[in-house]
Amino acid sequence: MTDTPEEIARASADTMWAADEASRLLGMEIVEVGPGRAKVSMVVRPDMINGWDVCHGGFVASLADSAFALACNSFGEVTVASGFDIALLEPAHAGDTLLAVAEQRATRGRTGIYDVTVTRTDGAGPATIAEFRGRSHATGRPIKGAP
Amino acid sequence: MTDTPEEIARASADTMWAADEASRLLGMEIVEVGPGRAKVSMVVRPDMINGWDVCHGGFVASLADSAFALACNSFGEVTVASGFDIALLEPAHAGDTLLAVAEQRATRGRTGIYDVTVTRTDGAGPATIAEFRGRSHATGRPIKGAP
Amino acid sequence: MTDTPEEIARASADTMWAADEASRLLGMEIVEVGPGRAKVSMVVRPDMINGWDVCHGGFVASLADSAFALACNSFGEVTVASGFDIALLEPAHAGDTLLAVAEQRATRGRTGIYDVTVTRTDGAGPATIAEFRGRSHATGRPIKGAP
Amino acid sequence: MTDTPEEIARASADTMWAADEASRLLGMEIVEVGPGRAKVSMVVRPDMINGWDVCHGGFVASLADSAFALACNSFGEVTVASGFDIALLEPAHAGDTLLAVAEQRATRGRTGIYDVTVTRTDGAGPATIAEFRGRSHATGRPIKGAP
Repeated sequence: MTDTPEEIARASADTMWAADEASRLLGMEIVEVGPGRAKVSMVVRPDMINGWDVCHGGFVASLADSAFALACNSFGEVTVASGFDIALLEPAHAGDTLLAVAEQRATRGRTGIYDVTVTRTDGAGPATIAEFRGRSHATGRPIKGAP
Repeated sequence: MTDTPEEIARASADTMWAADEASRLLGMEIVEVGPGRAKVSMVVRPDMINGWDVCHGGFVASLADSAFALACNSFGEVTVASGFDIALLEPAHAGDTLLAVAEQRATRGRTGIYDVTVTRTDGAGPATIAEFRGRSHATGRPIKGAP
Repeated sequence: MTDTPEEIARASADTMWAADEASRLLGMEIVEVGPGRAKVSMVVRPDMINGWDVCHGGFVASLADSAFALACNSFGEVTVASGFDIALLEPAHAGDTLLAVAEQRATRGRTGIYDVTVTRTDGAGPATIAEFRGRSHATGRPIKGAP
Repeated sequence: MTDTPEEIARASADTMWAADEASRLLGMEIVEVGPGRAKVSMVVRPDMINGWDVCHGGFVASLADSAFALACNSFGEVTVASGFDIALLEPAHAGDTLLAVAEQRATRGRTGIYDVTVTRTDGAGPATIAEFRGRSHATGRPIKGAP
């Protein structure tokens, strides 16, 4: 009996997320995961604010990075980030709910390119907060616990 | 009486850091700050670990981003990050002490380019963990509290 | 009588392209242009080859950059590139026909983010050659000759 | 008899440069090459100008990319670019002489990070034109002709 790509994606996410203390520290929640894609949400808390009274750019990047990690590991193979670029377009504030939507853009051999858009879904109205592009490297090792 | 560039850098850092809850949440400490430069340290805690048992890439980026913010705001003018790129070269583990060293590389008008190298200073021996390049935008507004 | 967005895009492209000696030097041709988007093609010539017998990465980037320039100037306002990132996924060879497809991804104030995918449309079969992301800055000045 | 790192760098550059038609098309000249570093110059010609009467950003990137290629191949091992980021800080004009200075910043396994600064050395006075960061991948194959 073969598992579907959707089942492999969910099982891979379950394995990773169970051990992901960092995403938990920032209160992230998985909204959706599938083959090559993931959605993760986060509410900006007062302790995520930087010296200019907006959400720390590194925390916006962390949210995008978590969605990227779920998306690039969704095929059941341990895959790591080799780097990423983020454009910070609009600040997020305490109380805002942010949604990161990750999608695979291209792959070539063990290298993958994933785009993540972070939007504000409430607060001062919908807006694009950041555009993130991740570079992934597949290790060739299967994810334990994934079917 | 004119303040020296070093004094302006320290006063700017004091103003920002006092309000920077995010950097505090990750236990960051300022090691040094001066005109166009900053050093910030962070110990990787167990709650900063991701699903692959290494420090979340977004938290390594957060450390670099905080050093970048101190460096690009060190001239007494409110300066924001418009984006950054990070290459994740080696994973960091729980218990590692990381040091981010930020330096201004170039400026042109209101745009600045800052390089930040994140190294592991203990644990399994010294190593370069990440290379970060930040893009800054100066707002033209003075930092309150800075001389 | 108001010009349509499609007409403004074409007139802006005509103005730019007439003076663009660099794109001409590499034999580029506009395939299509519209509001926030552009397609440009280029055949890799023997004099575009680097020391490893593949198309110089800077020339692949030049093709993507030309498509990006047409797309971000398609609204009739002089817009310049502040930078870009390119992932080089697969080499192109002499004789290959490359197609760069540029699309606006996000804007915020004067800043724009544009994605360009470069594909090989013949030669050894279709393939993604590169993924490019451009960062644009609108100057506020109208494009002369554009309606 | 062992070749010195400087000799290996020069022999590697000779092998690459002899076949690099692309760099020749843009009139580039090697100024200096050594282990992990290279300097390349280029005069901006009228046929390198884009639609806004400045040097095409892709050609500035090509100059930086050639210096990057020489620097990352200077150890006698075939090394390819997996991607790069460039910040375009100031436009270059026809007649300007540009100098690209490439230096290795970090390596980890087969991955390398190289920084290239492009400056204008004459024309309207010295200025930083662009800051480029290249990501390299070493193939493990020796450069033929290199000692």
